[in-house]
Amino acid sequence: MDLIKLSAVETATAIEAGETTCEAVTRALLERIDAREEQVGAWEYLDPDAAIAAAKILDGGPSKGLIHGVPVGVKDIIDTRDMPTTHGSPIHKDNRPCTDAPCVALVRGAGGLVLGKTVTSEFAAQRPGKTKNPHNPAHSPAGSSSGSAAAVTDYMVAVAFGTQTGGSIVRPGAFCGCIGYKPTYGDYNPLGVHDNTRSVDTLGMMSRTMADQALMRAVLTHAPYRPIETAAIADLRIGVCQTPNWHLADDATQECLLSAARDLETAGAVVADFDLPDGFDLAIEGFDAVSGYEISRTLAYEWLNFPELLSDNMRNNRVPNGLKVTPAAYQAGLAKLGDYRRQYAGSLQGWDVLITPSAPAEAPADLTTIGEPPFNRIWTGLHGPAINLPLYTGPQELPIGLQVVGHAGQDDRFLDAADAVYQVLR
Amino acid sequence: MDLIKLSAVETATAIEAGETTCEAVTRALLERIDAREEQVGAWEYLDPDAAIAAAKILDGGPSKGLIHGVPVGVKDIIDTRDMPTTHGSPIHKDNRPCTDAPCVALVRGAGGLVLGKTVTSEFAAQRPGKTKNPHNPAHSPAGSSSGSAAAVTDYMVAVAFGTQTGGSIVRPGAFCGCIGYKPTYGDYNPLGVHDNTRSVDTLGMMSRTMADQALMRAVLTHAPYRPIETAAIADLRIGVCQTPNWHLADDATQECLLSAARDLETAGAVVADFDLPDGFDLAIEGFDAVSGYEISRTLAYEWLNFPELLSDNMRNNRVPNGLKVTPAAYQAGLAKLGDYRRQYAGSLQGWDVLITPSAPAEAPADLTTIGEPPFNRIWTGLHGPAINLPLYTGPQELPIGLQVVGHAGQDDRFLDAADAVYQVLR
Repeated sequence: MDLIKLSAVETATAIEAGETTCEAVTRALLERIDAREEQVGAWEYLDPDAAIAAAKILDGGPSKGLIHGVPVGVKDIIDTRDMPTTHGSPIHKDNRPCTDAPCVALVRGAGGLVLGKTVTSEFAAQRPGKTKNPHNPAHSPAGSSSGSAAAVTDYMVAVAFGTQTGGSIVRPGAFCGCIGYKPTYGDYNPLGVHDNTRSVDTLGMMSRTMADQALMRAVLTHAPYRPIETAAIADLRIGVCQTPNWHLADDATQECLLSAARDLETAGAVVADFDLPDGFDLAIEGFDAVSGYEISRTLAYEWLNFPELLSDNMRNNRVPNGLKVTPAAYQAGLAKLGDYRRQYAGSLQGWDVLITPSAPAEAPADLTTIGEPPFNRIWTGLHGPAINLPLYTGPQELPIGLQVVGHAGQDDRFLDAADAVYQVLR
Repeated sequence: MDLIKLSAVETATAIEAGETTCEAVTRALLERIDAREEQVGAWEYLDPDAAIAAAKILDGGPSKGLIHGVPVGVKDIIDTRDMPTTHGSPIHKDNRPCTDAPCVALVRGAGGLVLGKTVTSEFAAQRPGKTKNPHNPAHSPAGSSSGSAAAVTDYMVAVAFGTQTGGSIVRPGAFCGCIGYKPTYGDYNPLGVHDNTRSVDTLGMMSRTMADQALMRAVLTHAPYRPIETAAIADLRIGVCQTPNWHLADDATQECLLSAARDLETAGAVVADFDLPDGFDLAIEGFDAVSGYEISRTLAYEWLNFPELLSDNMRNNRVPNGLKVTPAAYQAGLAKLGDYRRQYAGSLQGWDVLITPSAPAEAPADLTTIGEPPFNRIWTGLHGPAINLPLYTGPQELPIGLQVVGHAGQDDRFLDAADAVYQVLR
């Protein structure tokens, strides 16, 4: 049993069966991190002794729940009572929250072990952290959930929290090559998670298996555990959504989507092109107004007190431009997004899921960027579930993902359908 | 000049003109608090020496902005870097946030002085704090923004933050007899404010004058200051909304609304009955599902780690009942609320504002309740602006308020219209 390669489901099962212990798994992951962290840079904070001590306590006690003994990575914009929470900013290097965010409390309440804090870009926005793509350290891991995607992909932990405003879960999943699931907006409780743009920010999870997403969903929604029931591919109507940004996808990415469509049709699905309703540009305009208004006010403490410690882009562009958005323009932006959300929900009737690119291309050889969100923002704005499936490899030998998106508020069905797509194509 | 009776606008003007100082105002308010706090119990945390020291610094420096030298009360669910933030719960008695919430940072950035933390009910929910009604200590001040409403009414501070999930701004305003303004959802940045039900929670402000609301709105939205331009009463179309809960209002409250309607018509406004669209019950059902799902997950850290320190009602009713709401039921609840919000926005076309009761009756002689929200929840759920105008006195010699509600996203116009109503009726 290669402990570092176990999924969360497998880890929990093996511990429950007495085939391994939380301590053994934790030690194996810490060894992996020790060997790889210098190259990957996934962790903002790690205290190996504390992790082993916590593992021993879990091993010595009764099962606390679904993920008893399973180590979990926590993105460093999420409050933890026993670890710093820096938000990827030197302003908060000494920030020690007094409580766990509810999502962390739910993990611990179900027996999970918080292994450490994973690197985030500055306030989950554009300035990258130290993380490198685990496949090639010259390439970006994407962001903002850089550390979580890299750690999960590189077998440093089976599951780790991500958050998405533009494409900060799906795109790191695509660049690094792991599953990144953004649930329907609000399903995972967001208190204690630093805001970027609260009206769209969504808490989610990185994993290497679909089964782990269903497990963590049960933990984080505190709903009964419902393992994935893979949909029959022949029952699915799958829309192929190039989006108005299709021209921004490179040849390899375009071909991945088109070949996925062919293969799903061959496997028996009903597959056809799906066009987003008119108004895409207006919706994105609304998104920009909302994001500008919210992030600029959200960071008031920082730009008022420590402007010199913000990134140049945040200090000189995002904050001042966002402050120009008036409350009325902000509310108009929210209304535009809301209108488009309803139009889209109507258009989606009759479809089970859509497939669309996760990112424009493979990870760029540029560690100063977290990548671009032309294939992500709209789905985050629409509030429905989205997931990256790590399916393809591009010309640079780096992962290319396929994004599956679905109906807001129907995430169980969504995961069943996404798993069917994954099983056909992998 | 009676310093404790100055509004925020008057305080800022007097300080700027050199007619008083921040220190003098602060000392006057502290004296008032010293004299009255034992009876009123508005403050959770107050450090007079620190407040005076901060006042001296403001007096010694250049003007920082619109409210230079103006003391402000901060509800104790809002993070402050130099004061505890207990959320009204013994679980968090030692909670010392490392940063200011953005709303507090914006106050300080504009020259405001945080005088202290005002009492909140437990997590801005049902268990009241120690505050008593300033008019009669046997009566409730309402909640959850109890301390802020009592402090502002009792001349302990000119303005203080409130937050509203059900009616936690408007109703304390009504019971205590001050203005309580709940802006359009999201206008005032909510980061660092503890969630009750994030999908409806709204940050707002208590004051004794309408002018102060416009001033604080400029500070908190970081938009250009736009003083109120009182609407011409004859230009207003005012709907009288009894709501489906009219039978829950006592005779005095009903008569206040009806007499307001008569007086506004006499003054020249177009006044007519306004019926909420069908579906009120469904919308409230949606509200309940949303609130149950959100508050139960939001308090996961607390019920997992310190269940014995939660109130009985929270531990035995609200949390376990909320946990029964599934993610699908939650999303269905959000959809119901959203549908009703759109129907209502349609119905409101052609009307400038509605008037409706702020609360079912005067403050009850019961310090174990924060009062009931039958005239509040719907408006919070609808996301538009709502304000309590302290206009009437009931048979128990306690205040009865009039609630004015308006169009989401049009708060400048709303305040202009509400001020016109206020000027006619006061």
